[in-house]
Amino acid sequence: MFRRVAERLPAESIVYLGDTARVPYGTKSAETVVRYARACAQILLEREIKVLVVACNTATAYALDVLRDELAIPVLGVIEPGARRAVTATRNGRIGVVGTAGTIASGAYQSVLSSLAPNVQVSCKPCPLFVPLAEEGWVSGPVPRQIAEAYLAELLAQGIDTLLLGCTHYPLLREVIQEVAGPSVAIVDSAEATSVVVADILEGMGVCDAAQDSPQYRYLVTDSPTSFARVGQHFLGRDVGTVEWVDFP
Amino acid sequence: MFRRVAERLPAESIVYLGDTARVPYGTKSAETVVRYARACAQILLEREIKVLVVACNTATAYALDVLRDELAIPVLGVIEPGARRAVTATRNGRIGVVGTAGTIASGAYQSVLSSLAPNVQVSCKPCPLFVPLAEEGWVSGPVPRQIAEAYLAELLAQGIDTLLLGCTHYPLLREVIQEVAGPSVAIVDSAEATSVVVADILEGMGVCDAAQDSPQYRYLVTDSPTSFARVGQHFLGRDVGTVEWVDFP
Repeated sequence: MFRRVAERLPAESIVYLGDTARVPYGTKSAETVVRYARACAQILLEREIKVLVVACNTATAYALDVLRDELAIPVLGVIEPGARRAVTATRNGRIGVVGTAGTIASGAYQSVLSSLAPNVQVSCKPCPLFVPLAEEGWVSGPVPRQIAEAYLAELLAQGIDTLLLGCTHYPLLREVIQEVAGPSVAIVDSAEATSVVVADILEGMGVCDAAQDSPQYRYLVTDSPTSFARVGQHFLGRDVGTVEWVDFP
Repeated sequence: MFRRVAERLPAESIVYLGDTARVPYGTKSAETVVRYARACAQILLEREIKVLVVACNTATAYALDVLRDELAIPVLGVIEPGARRAVTATRNGRIGVVGTAGTIASGAYQSVLSSLAPNVQVSCKPCPLFVPLAEEGWVSGPVPRQIAEAYLAELLAQGIDTLLLGCTHYPLLREVIQEVAGPSVAIVDSAEATSVVVADILEGMGVCDAAQDSPQYRYLVTDSPTSFARVGQHFLGRDVGTVEWVDFP
């Protein structure tokens, strides 16, 4: 997500917060995810952000409405932009969604997709091993392939022609997922779709930093900055430089 | 661990605390694990426990000394008991240890094993996918087998005859691990070894509840009690009944 927004809006400064002391969110309950999301939003608000992107599908599924109610700035989730793009991409009206246990159990994608396109047939599948595979960097070869085959079998049997990657980690496995799904299935990355909406909102608000020559990127984490610096490059697509530790309530 | 202690000490009451809102610990830094371990110990002390078992290898590796310094009751970890048993079990002096990234990086097993038996040759391997596999219940078939093969290859090439399961989740994968390691490798489960030490300590302190007819089991969790009730049976080997939610600092 960071990478996509930075690419699309090269003049904007970004404050990135990774709640590394409490991830993963995908296996946790709605109550706990809402609590963590509120605390994270608070930390970012203190950095005077103008727009908040909830760059996690599970946090979007459980906490987006709460944050929108409580915060005075625009709050964007990753679910609706991804869903919109999937609806545009499908030809046969059959969309598959993969995500964490939490995201799929929340029913968020199912309900957004049906409100956008009532006739679309949605098939969902939680894929709990994709996040640890991506974090482990084990993204090719027979093991990820067989795991992807096991997870995608039902969705492919439904005849989907579009597959929504409903977790910000999954694009790291995109290649093996595409291989298993086959060339006739379009893969939709919600992070990419969301970055377009971020740009639209900033433009609509008239607060684009179009003239800023050198945007500032700040990286905040709740667990050790050192271990984040190591994996950060993997996820953010760049050398992260200084990483700042923030305490959480 | 709960299961082992309950089997060995059927008259003792047990208070179990699962820090489900913040697991896994195995991927987190020493500072964060110490912080969580302290908070968990506090919650349990309020329940008037007489002995604290740190039933997590990562928490033992990073926080055992701190807790021993700070608490007035005996504090047991899982690393030393497991290491002792491995030293007893080995015939050729070559011991393999598998654990989380945190446990292996801490060097705790390496240092305890060398102090117990300076001539033992210790080979360690972090196995980050074992925990999610166990939690997903994906414990047999080609996928766990290939993952185990990939993780154990180096250790087996070292000629180990004893393999220490240095993570409380790994016994769920014991069968596939044994299959891959072969019949000549002894598998040591640190939870089982620790339960013997718990019994010794209670006896040594003269505080065994030998006469108690119906021990009480209390289950506390920091995330949703509902989702724990579902997976609890898996890990604890029994129907967990009422699960209580506790807040954490």
